[in-house]
Amino acid sequence: MQSPVINELIDAFKLLPTIGPKSAQRLAYFLLQNHQQDGHRLASAIEAALEKVGYCQQCRNLSEAEVCGVCASKSRQADQLCIVEMPTDVVAIEQSGIYRGQYFVLMGHLSPIDGVGPDELGLPILRDRLAQGEIQELILATNPTVEGEATAHYIQQMAIEFNISVTRLAQGIPLGGELEYIDSGTLGQAFAGRKAV
Amino acid sequence: MQSPVINELIDAFKLLPTIGPKSAQRLAYFLLQNHQQDGHRLASAIEAALEKVGYCQQCRNLSEAEVCGVCASKSRQADQLCIVEMPTDVVAIEQSGIYRGQYFVLMGHLSPIDGVGPDELGLPILRDRLAQGEIQELILATNPTVEGEATAHYIQQMAIEFNISVTRLAQGIPLGGELEYIDSGTLGQAFAGRKAV
Ligand SMILES: [Zn+2]
Ligand SMILES: [Zn+2]
Repeated sequence: MQSPVINELIDAFKLLPTIGPKSAQRLAYFLLQNHQQDGHRLASAIEAALEKVGYCQQCRNLSEAEVCGVCASKSRQADQLCIVEMPTDVVAIEQSGIYRGQYFVLMGHLSPIDGVGPDELGLPILRDRLAQGEIQELILATNPTVEGEATAHYIQQMAIEFNISVTRLAQGIPLGGELEYIDSGTLGQAFAGRKAV
Repeated sequence: MQSPVINELIDAFKLLPTIGPKSAQRLAYFLLQNHQQDGHRLASAIEAALEKVGYCQQCRNLSEAEVCGVCASKSRQADQLCIVEMPTDVVAIEQSGIYRGQYFVLMGHLSPIDGVGPDELGLPILRDRLAQGEIQELILATNPTVEGEATAHYIQQMAIEFNISVTRLAQGIPLGGELEYIDSGTLGQAFAGRKAV
């Protein structure tokens, strides 16, 4: 008996993570009942972000510009490169405030079964960057999962070719945990206690 | 250091109930990182719903049509009218399946301090409807809060003028609770055990 457009709005909210049927209904009615302006603002913000946000040509992080703010910054160390799986990992590490080097964002991890190989993770771009000789330390901050470890191992082999020292975030990250959800203090410890591999 | 359009997207998500800063960030990155199509679908669904959904001329519930499905239905009892505060209350009662009459949606409750009086709640429309003589029973299903009770009392006085019997949902609704969050079984009990006031 509910209107089809309301049902479609509820279904669309259900596509989001952590939003179940009951929450989706609540969000849809919230916008329709008395927060129409918030609804327009959210719809516009989504479309603007999807249209304007692309990928940094240098680090593959999400960026409005061709080269992102971190890559373009002169105040960051140019000889340290931290490898992460996702843009949200960069956000988490930046929030910890402990790291002042550069990033490279894989946008995933090696997963042959899903057709994700070195090319999909931009590893040829990473190889070119390592070949330039500016990077002195590669910090492997992929997730401590089977796929994350395999990806880190692959990149480590690449760094060895170029005689670049490789470290891996170690202390404080719980086994099987996801970087994105780890608090700043723990992340700080993991950075401070990083070990040569 | 985050892009302004990403920040605006996070801010827009934060406007939604139960979505805090951390959830908002997660939702924004979810759409940007790998669910662009879901993002377009959600933005379109919001705009379509805001554009097409208005109010039923008869019951004031949200509706795409001038008269909503419940008001237009010939299979529903025409002599019972259930008064609720919000469209989500109609959804909750419909899901309980116990009620087959008509609704009137106040879109709020009396709240002089916020400038919400009888006109804002559509009570002149309700009065006209009661005056037509078809309604035999008015079921007051406003929330069991101070404002909800005051609103129910006001409407009860109106019904007395027209010699219409008035009942109030009673058993099973916890004090201070909100109708929208009550499970179907409890709502069913409240309907079955309604008492004359
Ligand atoms: Zn960059
Ligand atoms: Zn209606």
